[in-house]
Amino acid sequence: MGNKKVQKLPSIRRMPTYLHKLKQMRKNGLDTVSTTIMARYMNLEPIVIRKDLELTGVTGQPGVGYKIDELIDAIKSFLNWHNTAEAVLIGAGSLGRALLGYEGFEDYGLNIIAAFDADPSKIGAEINEREVFDINRLPEMTTRLQVNMGILCVPNEFAQEAADMMVEGGINAIWNFTNVSLDVPDHVVVQREVIASGLAVLSVKLNQQMLTD
Amino acid sequence: MGNKKVQKLPSIRRMPTYLHKLKQMRKNGLDTVSTTIMARYMNLEPIVIRKDLELTGVTGQPGVGYKIDELIDAIKSFLNWHNTAEAVLIGAGSLGRALLGYEGFEDYGLNIIAAFDADPSKIGAEINEREVFDINRLPEMTTRLQVNMGILCVPNEFAQEAADMMVEGGINAIWNFTNVSLDVPDHVVVQREVIASGLAVLSVKLNQQMLTD
Repeated sequence: MGNKKVQKLPSIRRMPTYLHKLKQMRKNGLDTVSTTIMARYMNLEPIVIRKDLELTGVTGQPGVGYKIDELIDAIKSFLNWHNTAEAVLIGAGSLGRALLGYEGFEDYGLNIIAAFDADPSKIGAEINEREVFDINRLPEMTTRLQVNMGILCVPNEFAQEAADMMVEGGINAIWNFTNVSLDVPDHVVVQREVIASGLAVLSVKLNQQMLTD
Repeated sequence: MGNKKVQKLPSIRRMPTYLHKLKQMRKNGLDTVSTTIMARYMNLEPIVIRKDLELTGVTGQPGVGYKIDELIDAIKSFLNWHNTAEAVLIGAGSLGRALLGYEGFEDYGLNIIAAFDADPSKIGAEINEREVFDINRLPEMTTRLQVNMGILCVPNEFAQEAADMMVEGGINAIWNFTNVSLDVPDHVVVQREVIASGLAVLSVKLNQQMLTD
């Protein structure tokens, strides 16, 4: 991975927050937004906002700011969120259930259509209108339904096995909530999600705050 | 916020993952680890690994690598995770319940000691051995218990009100899972957690993969 890509990561991570705010503003009848207002909402310097939004190909007009409709469109294109992506979720434990219950994903073009688990007591259950299927049916079902995204929430020890089944079922994007570095073919992209990452940032901020107080 | 700080963010976010892997290695009887092995696990270039770990003040020895014990210690100091931090959680909805059920926080020195909610049907319940209290008791209880971290999982429309109560109760670090930009005094640090951030990164990766295939 090149250094340039790495430095873009925080900008990409901020895109859903821009999108959320812009949609809210549009709902409130606004047409344009200034960098200053966005900077205040994001709690970042205006220069960071400008650089982030430049990634989408849109530049603000001096004295006017950004056209909200145009910016929403550009961010969605940048993220390829114009088309709804269908995903399956593997592992209906406490985190998996929370993700199935999360209403916000639709705003981001993500539709979780089914869940899979190995636990007979979970198979057949319905969580927020999505059925939990036997994990052994995963490869056949994702192939047939042409789903290409999988959300991995199984315990660490089953992560690689579950990933193998996803790959077998034609999934080429894995959102990995386990702590395992998955071994997958080159054409499969993986994004590892570490819930404690934010906690680390908060701890460092608090530490710095206490040092400067 | 300075630009330098912003660029360090991805490094800080990766610290819990380093910590997890190092602890696992120590459990397996290893004493040292090379940059190359860490780079493979993290799926990053060795130079990124070296720069990340430099932040903790530890440098690897040529031909030997990093001493695992020393590195674990240094990362914990960097994050101020040597002492367990006690936190309360506000909003026992689906995400809040998932966080209460998550066993991994203890590894990161976080102990959620109680939850708060406004919903009478939730007050008095016990989730993973933590009681759910009436949110009106929050300021008094966090003051008495000297808790200084709060995890905010309420619906957006109640976010500011809940944050005000936390500040009143002496909390100075808020892990904010809502979409609201909180208005808090200068001495309070806030880390906003956007679950869709990782999805944005995954989408961009998948997009780039499809463009280069």
